[in-house]
Amino acid sequence: MISQEFIKNLIVKNNNKIILMVLDGVGGIPNKLGKTEIETAYAPNFDFITRNSITGIADPVSMGITPGSGPGHLSIFGYDPIKYIIGRGILAALGIDFPLKQGDIAVRGNFATLDSANKILDRRAGRIPTEHCKKLTEMIQNKIKKIYDTEIFIEPVMDYRFVTIFRGADLSDKLTDTDPQATGVAPLKCNFLDAKAKKSAKIVNEFIEKANSIIKDQHPANGLLLRGFSSYPEIKPMTEIYGLKPAAIATYPMYKGLAKLVGMDILDVGSTDIMDELKTLKENYDKYDFFYFHIKKTDTYGEDGNFDAKVRLIEEVDEKIVPEILKLNPTVLTITCDHSTPAIMKQHSFHGVPFVLFSPYARPDRTEYFSEREIGTKGGLGRFEAKNEIVLMLAHSLKLKKFGA
Amino acid sequence: MISQEFIKNLIVKNNNKIILMVLDGVGGIPNKLGKTEIETAYAPNFDFITRNSITGIADPVSMGITPGSGPGHLSIFGYDPIKYIIGRGILAALGIDFPLKQGDIAVRGNFATLDSANKILDRRAGRIPTEHCKKLTEMIQNKIKKIYDTEIFIEPVMDYRFVTIFRGADLSDKLTDTDPQATGVAPLKCNFLDAKAKKSAKIVNEFIEKANSIIKDQHPANGLLLRGFSSYPEIKPMTEIYGLKPAAIATYPMYKGLAKLVGMDILDVGSTDIMDELKTLKENYDKYDFFYFHIKKTDTYGEDGNFDAKVRLIEEVDEKIVPEILKLNPTVLTITCDHSTPAIMKQHSFHGVPFVLFSPYARPDRTEYFSEREIGTKGGLGRFEAKNEIVLMLAHSLKLKKFGA
Repeated sequence: MISQEFIKNLIVKNNNKIILMVLDGVGGIPNKLGKTEIETAYAPNFDFITRNSITGIADPVSMGITPGSGPGHLSIFGYDPIKYIIGRGILAALGIDFPLKQGDIAVRGNFATLDSANKILDRRAGRIPTEHCKKLTEMIQNKIKKIYDTEIFIEPVMDYRFVTIFRGADLSDKLTDTDPQATGVAPLKCNFLDAKAKKSAKIVNEFIEKANSIIKDQHPANGLLLRGFSSYPEIKPMTEIYGLKPAAIATYPMYKGLAKLVGMDILDVGSTDIMDELKTLKENYDKYDFFYFHIKKTDTYGEDGNFDAKVRLIEEVDEKIVPEILKLNPTVLTITCDHSTPAIMKQHSFHGVPFVLFSPYARPDRTEYFSEREIGTKGGLGRFEAKNEIVLMLAHSLKLKKFGA
Repeated sequence: MISQEFIKNLIVKNNNKIILMVLDGVGGIPNKLGKTEIETAYAPNFDFITRNSITGIADPVSMGITPGSGPGHLSIFGYDPIKYIIGRGILAALGIDFPLKQGDIAVRGNFATLDSANKILDRRAGRIPTEHCKKLTEMIQNKIKKIYDTEIFIEPVMDYRFVTIFRGADLSDKLTDTDPQATGVAPLKCNFLDAKAKKSAKIVNEFIEKANSIIKDQHPANGLLLRGFSSYPEIKPMTEIYGLKPAAIATYPMYKGLAKLVGMDILDVGSTDIMDELKTLKENYDKYDFFYFHIKKTDTYGEDGNFDAKVRLIEEVDEKIVPEILKLNPTVLTITCDHSTPAIMKQHSFHGVPFVLFSPYARPDRTEYFSEREIGTKGGLGRFEAKNEIVLMLAHSLKLKKFGA
């Protein structure tokens, strides 16, 4: 991929619209009938688009690498996913829509059961329900607001899991986990891996000590384990690098968080209904020139192993969403995903993802319908790295000038 | 390619088996009938595998580069062949199965004919036979065991060629050849290219002086010429980088040497018969999770220009070996080669090589039979660099976890 700096020097601003539709995890592998989810779906509108597009199979990170949602999305947004690492703690905070700031350190936490000798009996405190978790985080938050100059935020996530954010001067995420990931041993002290993280380690250890004493009588959740300290990454916004005015239409917190990370405005959809996402797109169409339009449940059904539901959702998007988007007549409509989630495998996978770019300025290839293998065999872009996608979208919306004379 | 360090952090150990079948030099170009060796062979089992695999054409080093066996294999094994250079001396020593150690310096040698004024009359000493060469190396070895602290090993290779290994402290291969590659001039002194190689140059020059005096009456082979000083490369074993327990099934010394270089166990086949290779695979199948299965003679017949023999060998492997390997039911079976050796060209070539990966977790592409051009046109991996192959093999055997959350 060409560097962001290189692209930045070629940017031309115009009002041509780019719609990036991410059908999360839509890529698959064949079922017993020999067809992937996409191939099984009756999707005449996706077929029409594919037939008139330039297409290819993209590797979100690199051949053979299974991407998480973070790297999968960053590469589509034009950020090298190996350079811009989103730590687990940050992703957890993004996932609950916590308003992170530059410099924040976030860490994932478990409520755990400790015995009288401070040994871990259960790393998940009997999997207490979210409501119980919320009660515990509130108890702690009420008594701990700040340690030295550093603000502390503790928020429930789900079941026994919570997230803690540290906000203060000179914090570092070069810290070791306190979760030993084993039972029968005591929680670990947080240690610093770099002299600059000494202050952070001290604050973390004081936080744990205080929090443990607050919940010490709350058996089975009478202790805290922290893992995955990470800092909010320094990422230049898409506006600065790519000259875009970008907006995100997504219904799940993590994706909104990822979009915010690259400087998108997050539009309020008001529900998790894809028809409300469409409505949001229409209502805001004049205000932006780049729309990240995220469909979550293709991935959810893939992870559930629900091949048929994934197929039906593709069909529903094809029937209800795609024609309406075509009516908006964007200069670029891209259909792709952040990673494959084959229902057969019930998890994210390493398989290349379909990429379809529909534009009056595209040179369509020989693909005749929407299918990973049709695209893989006849796609004009061949097999390529997903971080090139933003450049293709900018190019086809005429937002890049000529390089050299 | 993603870095080895990156992959290392994603490794998950399991007992899923990977069989990597390298049909040395099997790739070809069409003969007068318009078919390559692979295309000419009747190989229904290879066809079956190809039809149900993800495939592509790989460049072992880079487009247009003809690889030697060293770089060709290293890239398949997951080592960047441009970064890990196997010097000629080292390759020669591996080729005669010399037990090299870290720190060794090896160099290729010719016995040559010198005149009374020490000028080279014949760089190859009238191409003396191997037996004569062996007699000379023994004469020298009997009188020279050590120079200062450095052990000297001199071993015959073939005809007038031998190899010398220097084993001692602080040796360096930053040395110039003594072979001027011309006649009518005197052999060159070995010079050091780096201050750290000063000791090595001194040892080499003393070795040559002593050896020359030992064989001075052995006309026509009365002098030594050395070229290609190289040190045993520092390569982290596959076990450390890729978490594999790898074994090599190969019958020729150079390939065993290359496998040993990357930390494989070398299994004793006991003959050069491919049926004994199969037997060895079966007998050791439970003990390893990665098998490098090398078929040598496809390359030999290619170099001989024997198109038909190459075709027949492909058919033989298809008939006798492939069905038995399929019965073992490995999670990944890869069919590829380290470079093409078109019989038409009688040498290694720069043509892309077929890569076929058969696995229950593969997304098969549109290829219908085993053919360089079928794969090149319809292969789902497109054209790619061979150093990605190890990542694909690890991915399809579920030995890599997700990158990022």
